[in-house]
Amino acid sequence: MTKKDKLVIGDVELSSRFFLGTGRYPNPFVQNEAIRESGTEVLTFAIRRVNLEAPDEDAILQHVEGKIFQYLPNTSGAKTAEEAVRIAQLAKASGLSSWIKVEISANEKTLLPDPVETLKATEQLAKEGFTVLPYTSDDPVLCKRLEEAGAAAVMPGAAPIGTGLGVLNPYNLSLIIEEANVPIIVDAGLGSAKDVTEVMELGADGVLMNTPVAKAKDPVRMAAAMKHAIEAGRLSYEAGRIQKKRYATASSGYETFISK
Amino acid sequence: MTKKDKLVIGDVELSSRFFLGTGRYPNPFVQNEAIRESGTEVLTFAIRRVNLEAPDEDAILQHVEGKIFQYLPNTSGAKTAEEAVRIAQLAKASGLSSWIKVEISANEKTLLPDPVETLKATEQLAKEGFTVLPYTSDDPVLCKRLEEAGAAAVMPGAAPIGTGLGVLNPYNLSLIIEEANVPIIVDAGLGSAKDVTEVMELGADGVLMNTPVAKAKDPVRMAAAMKHAIEAGRLSYEAGRIQKKRYATASSGYETFISK
Amino acid sequence: MTKKDKLVIGDVELSSRFFLGTGRYPNPFVQNEAIRESGTEVLTFAIRRVNLEAPDEDAILQHVEGKIFQYLPNTSGAKTAEEAVRIAQLAKASGLSSWIKVEISANEKTLLPDPVETLKATEQLAKEGFTVLPYTSDDPVLCKRLEEAGAAAVMPGAAPIGTGLGVLNPYNLSLIIEEANVPIIVDAGLGSAKDVTEVMELGADGVLMNTPVAKAKDPVRMAAAMKHAIEAGRLSYEAGRIQKKRYATASSGYETFISK
Amino acid sequence: MTKKDKLVIGDVELSSRFFLGTGRYPNPFVQNEAIRESGTEVLTFAIRRVNLEAPDEDAILQHVEGKIFQYLPNTSGAKTAEEAVRIAQLAKASGLSSWIKVEISANEKTLLPDPVETLKATEQLAKEGFTVLPYTSDDPVLCKRLEEAGAAAVMPGAAPIGTGLGVLNPYNLSLIIEEANVPIIVDAGLGSAKDVTEVMELGADGVLMNTPVAKAKDPVRMAAAMKHAIEAGRLSYEAGRIQKKRYATASSGYETFISK
Repeated sequence: MTKKDKLVIGDVELSSRFFLGTGRYPNPFVQNEAIRESGTEVLTFAIRRVNLEAPDEDAILQHVEGKIFQYLPNTSGAKTAEEAVRIAQLAKASGLSSWIKVEISANEKTLLPDPVETLKATEQLAKEGFTVLPYTSDDPVLCKRLEEAGAAAVMPGAAPIGTGLGVLNPYNLSLIIEEANVPIIVDAGLGSAKDVTEVMELGADGVLMNTPVAKAKDPVRMAAAMKHAIEAGRLSYEAGRIQKKRYATASSGYETFISK
Repeated sequence: MTKKDKLVIGDVELSSRFFLGTGRYPNPFVQNEAIRESGTEVLTFAIRRVNLEAPDEDAILQHVEGKIFQYLPNTSGAKTAEEAVRIAQLAKASGLSSWIKVEISANEKTLLPDPVETLKATEQLAKEGFTVLPYTSDDPVLCKRLEEAGAAAVMPGAAPIGTGLGVLNPYNLSLIIEEANVPIIVDAGLGSAKDVTEVMELGADGVLMNTPVAKAKDPVRMAAAMKHAIEAGRLSYEAGRIQKKRYATASSGYETFISK
Repeated sequence: MTKKDKLVIGDVELSSRFFLGTGRYPNPFVQNEAIRESGTEVLTFAIRRVNLEAPDEDAILQHVEGKIFQYLPNTSGAKTAEEAVRIAQLAKASGLSSWIKVEISANEKTLLPDPVETLKATEQLAKEGFTVLPYTSDDPVLCKRLEEAGAAAVMPGAAPIGTGLGVLNPYNLSLIIEEANVPIIVDAGLGSAKDVTEVMELGADGVLMNTPVAKAKDPVRMAAAMKHAIEAGRLSYEAGRIQKKRYATASSGYETFISK
Repeated sequence: MTKKDKLVIGDVELSSRFFLGTGRYPNPFVQNEAIRESGTEVLTFAIRRVNLEAPDEDAILQHVEGKIFQYLPNTSGAKTAEEAVRIAQLAKASGLSSWIKVEISANEKTLLPDPVETLKATEQLAKEGFTVLPYTSDDPVLCKRLEEAGAAAVMPGAAPIGTGLGVLNPYNLSLIIEEANVPIIVDAGLGSAKDVTEVMELGADGVLMNTPVAKAKDPVRMAAAMKHAIEAGRLSYEAGRIQKKRYATASSGYETFISK
């Protein structure tokens, strides 16, 4: 990334475009190594009341020393806007973060976000001064309405959480990016480095991942892979790819060379 | 790439998995900057008799100083095995390289390689002691036969040269990789960083590109993108991606955190 | 279709699963021939006040004689639930139909449906006794909520109207179908017979098309193609396709034959 | 199919574009019903010596009464051109058919055809006066060379035999069709009615299937599905599909209607 190519969300300027989830790693050591290798500056995790009441116990994130993270707590588990709002308020009250990832689902099988409740919660939390990043479907109209409701960034899913199915609908993502005035962070469903390069090449401002890193055979190496994939996709997006054509064009240069 | 993860072709050990063509850049300066940025160690170009007779003139490749490249001249323009063999012999006789990319096509529209002639030329050149890298279709049986004929590496195309269509048949590429005992370098048709990450993630040993870099709006930046894409794909291949699933799995960790 | 395989929407039983739009044909003769060839029993069109005030003029649909159609007027042009509801009420009041396709969009470029307004209009019109068929995005949660709001059938788009891009997200469509208790009619964005066979094979209950037929080079022949495509996909869905496998299985039977 | 739209191979004119394999059906009754339902006029099967020596035993094909088929015996099991040629000669000598599907593979896992041996056998059998239909990969150059070698039709595979993976590379198929002067019959790897509609829409002259019909849950119904799929794809190809576009076009006609 060149010096000017920063991602700005709310009043925070980020050098990394990689948002990383903290769940499902084999152990805290691997988790921390993966976090380090990823270069991430934003960590996301779900909030439980117990966390908020006993913040000192089992403080996994304390292990990543020498680095300050932007926390992005999420409201997963919430089935309504009301529940999500309450969780966000608790998180803020505890001093954790004023950033909140709105994540509301009533479907256990797909965990896909509820559009109406997500919009409602986003609107209210934005009014209350939160930096709101809603997780949403890839419905372009809905994404636009979330922006209008005050979202600081919008986070459409590539596929259902944890499926690793990759970008089910690159066309929709490209429409969303084309129309957006806030950053678009692709969240959920990514499976591999290819998927990540693809979304960044479409012009996404960043990606949020958890399972593809945490459940890879080698999470630390996969964190490095994803970091390169983000860089590759972003640079390619900036560099401007060639047009696709139906027929061939010879590429070989006829070079003069140093012969001995 | 870790220290052990080297690509070995013939008796040459390579640190980079990026083979770069030298044609179609806007000017020599951009060409050289792109070559430098790519980290490539193998340069490919077509051979003309004039090159071989007057090797000192217009020596573009001399501009890339302080770096020694493995040259991979190609036989593009050849329509038969006989022509390709003759070009290879001239290149070797001039002291340029004993590596040769066999590239034989009679179809001006697609420049797709002729399977029979390619096989014939590969067989003969391997017998003559060349390090032969044939450009071929993604026919898995043909790729195997090229290996049996003595190819040092096999180079199936992702799509016709210069089209940027990307990986038309990832399944065939994965079969080829699965069955191969020599390195598989994906050559031709790639368009973007995503395509490159994809083929590396399938287990390809490297990629050869020219047009997607040379004709990008910013070739130097695209060279960097492709370098990252190769790294991303290779690391992801090694790290072992998650399985795809139809239904969701919650990923969020319920972390305890440092609250202040 | 076997005798039992009927599509039931509201209290209407349909023998054809093809809903056809009446716009954009080169001329009324071709329109009528295409309608006839398609075998459709449901015709859809937008409502203008002028239609409702002067129902006798230019009565194109009168030309399709000897056949009784279910009319499915749509609310295209509406940007809010309120506008859509008003249009539906006018249509009903004029005696045209109590079926209504809710179609609400504020985006001129994509004409993609607004999820919130669509849900609101569906809810109200269902309460008023309409047979409501909302055009919606392929967001599975939204489709479920439309069903819960009283939709008689739900009509997710394959792609934006008139684009011919085909099924952008077959996975989402299959989730929607899997979860639905009302018929799913795929509407908008289909381009070719292949697209139609695909959605029917996924288990859709029907398709609504207009542009792919009306703007084909030969609309009448394309209407026949689409009819066969619906039949093909439906029969294949019922017949139960083979599983995909990575490796081959010989299929040849060793038959004894009549030799002379 | 209109009366003029016939498929001509060698000196035979066919009304159906469906070539059907006779293997793997649950029982002879289902096999015969499926054959009948499919409308096929060309049956394909492998040849064993025992068939040729004892043509009267177990004559399954005798059960399809009242219909005369063009037999297309295949050389499956052959690993070389020599073996394939010998099988073809035996089949002809026994009076079975002078049509032969050249099928040569040495790879048990993929059963993919050997390009070099296939070309050699095709050349020789064509010279001997056979009507030769070689099964081949989707390599466009190879397909052209098979035509030049005297193939009466060329049969590229969509995917390996029996996998049901569908059309792995529609681009290559479309190139093959575009360049061909003999009929292109897509053979092997198809899985569903959608796949069939797709290849016919690309302009293929016909399809050869076995497993997708024989191993469907309901083979007879699937035979009907495939028949419709061929019709759908062919009609759509002839009717001329709409162009794909990135943005929407309203399709609704504002019709005047008969109101009562």
